[in-house]
Formats: sequence, structure tokens, C-alpha cells
Amino acid sequence: MRFVIAAGTTRTAAIEGISAAGGDADVMRHTPSADVEIVEYGRPVCAPVVPVSPSGCPTPAVVTRAVRKRLKFDTLLLDAGLAMPTAAPTVNVADPGHDLRDPEPVPEADATVDAARELGRTLPDREVVIGESIPGGTTTALGVLRALGEPYDVSSSLAENPLPLKRDVVSDGLDASGVSAGDAAGKPLLAIRRMGDPVLAAVFGLAAGAASQGADVTLAGGTQMIAAAALLRHADVEGPIRVATTAFVAADREADLRRAATNLDLSLAVTDPGFDQASGTAFARYRDGEAKEGVGMGGALWLAERHGVPMGDVRDGMHEILERLSVGSYRDPVGTGSGEEPG
Amino acid sequence: MRFVIAAGTTRTAAIEGISAAGGDADVMRHTPSADVEIVEYGRPVCAPVVPVSPSGCPTPAVVTRAVRKRLKFDTLLLDAGLAMPTAAPTVNVADPGHDLRDPEPVPEADATVDAARELGRTLPDREVVIGESIPGGTTTALGVLRALGEPYDVSSSLAENPLPLKRDVVSDGLDASGVSAGDAAGKPLLAIRRMGDPVLAAVFGLAAGAASQGADVTLAGGTQMIAAAALLRHADVEGPIRVATTAFVAADREADLRRAATNLDLSLAVTDPGFDQASGTAFARYRDGEAKEGVGMGGALWLAERHGVPMGDVRDGMHEILERLSVGSYRDPVGTGSGEEPG
Repeated sequence: MRFVIAAGTTRTAAIEGISAAGGDADVMRHTPSADVEIVEYGRPVCAPVVPVSPSGCPTPAVVTRAVRKRLKFDTLLLDAGLAMPTAAPTVNVADPGHDLRDPEPVPEADATVDAARELGRTLPDREVVIGESIPGGTTTALGVLRALGEPYDVSSSLAENPLPLKRDVVSDGLDASGVSAGDAAGKPLLAIRRMGDPVLAAVFGLAAGAASQGADVTLAGGTQMIAAAALLRHADVEGPIRVATTAFVAADREADLRRAATNLDLSLAVTDPGFDQASGTAFARYRDGEAKEGVGMGGALWLAERHGVPMGDVRDGMHEILERLSVGSYRDPVGTGSGEEPG
Repeated sequence: MRFVIAAGTTRTAAIEGISAAGGDADVMRHTPSADVEIVEYGRPVCAPVVPVSPSGCPTPAVVTRAVRKRLKFDTLLLDAGLAMPTAAPTVNVADPGHDLRDPEPVPEADATVDAARELGRTLPDREVVIGESIPGGTTTALGVLRALGEPYDVSSSLAENPLPLKRDVVSDGLDASGVSAGDAAGKPLLAIRRMGDPVLAAVFGLAAGAASQGADVTLAGGTQMIAAAALLRHADVEGPIRVATTAFVAADREADLRRAATNLDLSLAVTDPGFDQASGTAFARYRDGEAKEGVGMGGALWLAERHGVPMGDVRDGMHEILERLSVGSYRDPVGTGSGEEPG
């Protein structure tokens, strides 16, 4: 099993009010670079920030790291458009994406999909789990769903989902791209190039390549992975696709998770990390509906459950990481950790 | 503990007769890209070759992979001048090096050392083991040693060390660079820029950075790592430095391993993988004096010994990998493997 994380950025994330992934837009540009460092090393190394929302909700990279530390699974980190340097080893498959309201927000979509597909096709693993880190990613996911003609709404990393704003951005994007809702049905590359982001290009390509060699494919995430799964179905990938996500996304009434899973013939794995049994601001923010998913969190939790790791152990692991990152008190929403990881 | 491998290329490797790392010059350009894929995935993924010498000696990446498979240590692969694409995730710190006989074979030496030093300084690990993969690397190591004024001779991946040829190349390089032997004493950056290679720049920088934060540093390799250690001593790094290498390098009478280790105040760990107790062409070629080291082999063997892994298990692991790579029979010195790795 290999745990893949496609990490990237777009200018879409800079739209005021779109994302909670890391606070303000300047800090947010570092979020995916910091996320992959946290998964790889347990803390930011080269990235100058710990991604924490203004209210003190830490990045779900902490959850994925806690599980990885326990299960020691292999990782493959994809630079699918990072805007800032990272000290985590990556395979580069894309440049940053533009604004969804541009005519072509992912001009190199075809090349990214090709590179990722070839990688997925040649990986030696019989099972891949694919997560993502991209601020503003649910908005571009909504763009892709609309371009494909899929009616589902998306979730949010904010407790209050700014769906009206996302719909406006998508509507402007469709106008600018000269694409009407449904025009890209059966044309996943068109949907990504005109209405997507480079991370969706990478996830779609990698999943398609892995599926083509018979690997078991799990998309680890919420409604962004619904968009990735829709792209796969519109590319006539007919085999089984699993979406592994968190109870927080499943509980989001605005997101059409279950309906989409049924209609797209996806098997759905929902895992509850039991954050109601933990104290501390981090867990409280998740209970409030912040973050919900990201950086493969749902997939990591599903793997933990599958391997018999109690959720209490996952939460303990998170506690350790958060303390080392000095976000235990959450008084300093954006700080740089410097502690060492034991063992 | 983190196992780092700096992988790169130079035009020096294209000089006829310099290296055995992968057969002819065209194939050799792929060797480091394939090596890091073998360490990461157990077989080449994107690289179109399995590095095997014309006589059937497989890359020591197979040994490092066999130990990694067993110990599951963390890795950090550095693109220190890869000429060909790789599907292994890397942090890029350098472009390929030029010919040692050019005036400045590593024009960006300072930037590479800076980037690698910063990475080494910020890594969370209390212990780093650093290996290399660079065809022609002992020749550039000899160049660095001469520029620093260090008198030691180097080993070779060939059973018959072409030392006279290496000395000629180094002599031409010194002339072209306007550097006399010893001119770069106390000036490691000058030695690398005018007479080195990008992998030595990366190893030197990473080791210096890691040492500066108090990490335990092991240079995993033969005489190339003697050159890296000399660079560290010439940069006034005074703490303990370990060189972990194989019994094959230690048995090489032309290489001044022990004398250099004593004079440079290095602790030397020599591990014998017991290839005399294994049958098959791969092991026979090593016994004949081919390859000897590379891709961190000596460091991997040292870690195996330290963790109580019997050398018989390492050899069994190698057998498995070699069979999967279809180089078990060694009838096809350069082939592409396609098998899956179990577990």
C-alpha cells in the first residue's frame, strides 16, 4: 500500500472568504508545502508556518502524520502545483493553477494528467490511497462537477460553508471559460483545464493509471474526491472506486456525499476519529465543523481502523504532534514548531 | 534516523573507461535515477534500465533496498543533478555537473551547498546516514582530494581501478581550473566548484547542516565519502564523523581508506555482507571486486548489523529483489523489471 498526497495551489484560494486552510492568503500559499512536510517529518521543516485556522483548528496533516507514525506506510508526495518550497521529497507533476475565473485555470492539465497516469500505471503497489492538500480545493471541485454536469454540492473547511460565494465563482468561471454546465460531460480533461485545479489533474491521472494496472484505488478525502471520482467515471473508468472520508464530511448536510457516492457507484468508507472524547482546542474546532478533511485524513483514519489501531491512539499521537508544534495552547495560531519527534 | 541518498550525474562519467555504474555512457545517465527508484520502490519505475555492469554486477541499490525493506527506515532522496527523470520523490538541490576537465564543473556549488546545509540544519532527525549515487564519482572525489591537498587515492566500481586514467583526468582538471594541488585547502566550496561534483556538494552541505544542529552523521560510502569528510574537516567541522563502508572497499589496497580515516579523525565502520556464502552471478561479481559500494550500501549494512539483522537475511532480500528484476540469470545485463514486490 502506498499513501499518495497530491499537494498544490491555485489563485482561486486567494479569493476572500473561500478557504480556511491556513488563515490569510499569504500564509495559505505555504499550507500545502507545510502539510507534506508534516506528513513526512512530523513538523514543518522549510515551510515557515504551521497551518492553523484563525480560530485554532490545526491542519488535518496532523491526523495523517499520527496514523503514518503508527502504521509506517510508504508515501508518495506529489508536487501538483506548490507555490512555495518544501523540504519534503516530491515528484513534480504540475505548476500552480490560476484563478477559476480565468479562461483556462489549468492550462497544462493534459500534461499533468499524462505524467500522473504514467506514474500510477508503473507504481509497484497493488493498493494506493490518494489524498490532497490544496486551499480553495472545494471551490474548484464544484467547478469540475458543474462542468461535468454533476449536480452535487461540496463541503468546506470552514464551519460556515460559503456555498453562495463558491457558486458565484464557479458561475463566473463557466462564463470566462466558455463552458456551460454539462458541456464537459465525458470530457474530464476539458473539465479540469477550464474549471479545475492541478491537484484534481494529478489525483485523476494517478488514480486512472493505478486502476488501469488493477490496483485497488481509494480516494482519501471529502467532496474534492467526489469530483475526482466523477472525473474517473466520465473517463469511463468502470472498476471499483472507494472514497474514504471522515464523519465530519459525512455529517455535512450541505455536501451531497452519499447521494453522489450512490449515483457514481462509489463505495464509501466513513471513519469517526472520536474527537468528542478528546479535550483541547484542536479537537473542539473539528467538532465545530472546521477543516473536516484534507491531506488524506479520512483515508488515514480508515487505514488505522482497518489495522486495528484504536482511535484513542490516533488522538494521543495527534496530541504529541500538536504539543511539539507548540500549537497545544492555540494562543499562537500561526507559529513555527521546532521540537524533535521522538523515536 | 533518516537515510539520505544524494543522486546526480556529471559529464565526467562519460569519459571512456571511468565508471562501471551501469554499462555504457547512455545507460549510465539513467543509473542514479534508477537507483533511487530501486531504493524507494524495489524496482525501476520510470527509469528504463536496471543498472547492471556489463559483466552482470547489479547496482548496490539492491543491497540498500533489501535492508530498507527489513528496517523500514525513513529516506530522503536528493536530486543532486539527475540527468534523467525519476519517479522517486526527491528534493532538488542541484543541476547535473559538467566535465571535470572544464574550468568550473560545478558552477552552482555554493547554492547547492547552501540549500543542502539548510535542509540538514532543519531536519528533525537526531541521526542521518548519507549515501550517494553518481557515476564517475570516485574520479571527482579524487579531484576534490587533490584540490584540498589531501594525498589519498580512491577506489573504483571496476575490478581493475583505472587510477592512471583518473589521475590524468584530475591533472587536466586542475590545469583547466587554474587550481594547483592544495590550493583549495581550507576552501571546500572552491574545491567542489572547480574540481568536484554536485553530489559531493549536496553530501557536504547536508552533513555540515546536520552536524551543526548536533545530529549524529554517518557518511555511507567508500572513498567518495572520504572526500566528503575531507571537505567537512576543511570547513572546520570538528565533531565526530563516521564513515560506514563495505569490506570490499576496505579490502581495496589502492584506496587509502584507513590512512585517510585516521588522518581525518573519522571513525570507520566496515561491514562484510558475507557474499562468499551466497551463490549467483551478482554475489560473484562483488567478490571479484566490482561495484564495492554505492547508494549507501555500507551504511545500510552497518544499520542492519546494528539492528541485529543477520547478513543471511540481507542476502535473501537481495535474491528476492534480483529475481523480481529478472537479473537473476544475468543473461540480460540491461533489462527492465516489471514484477511486483510482495507485502
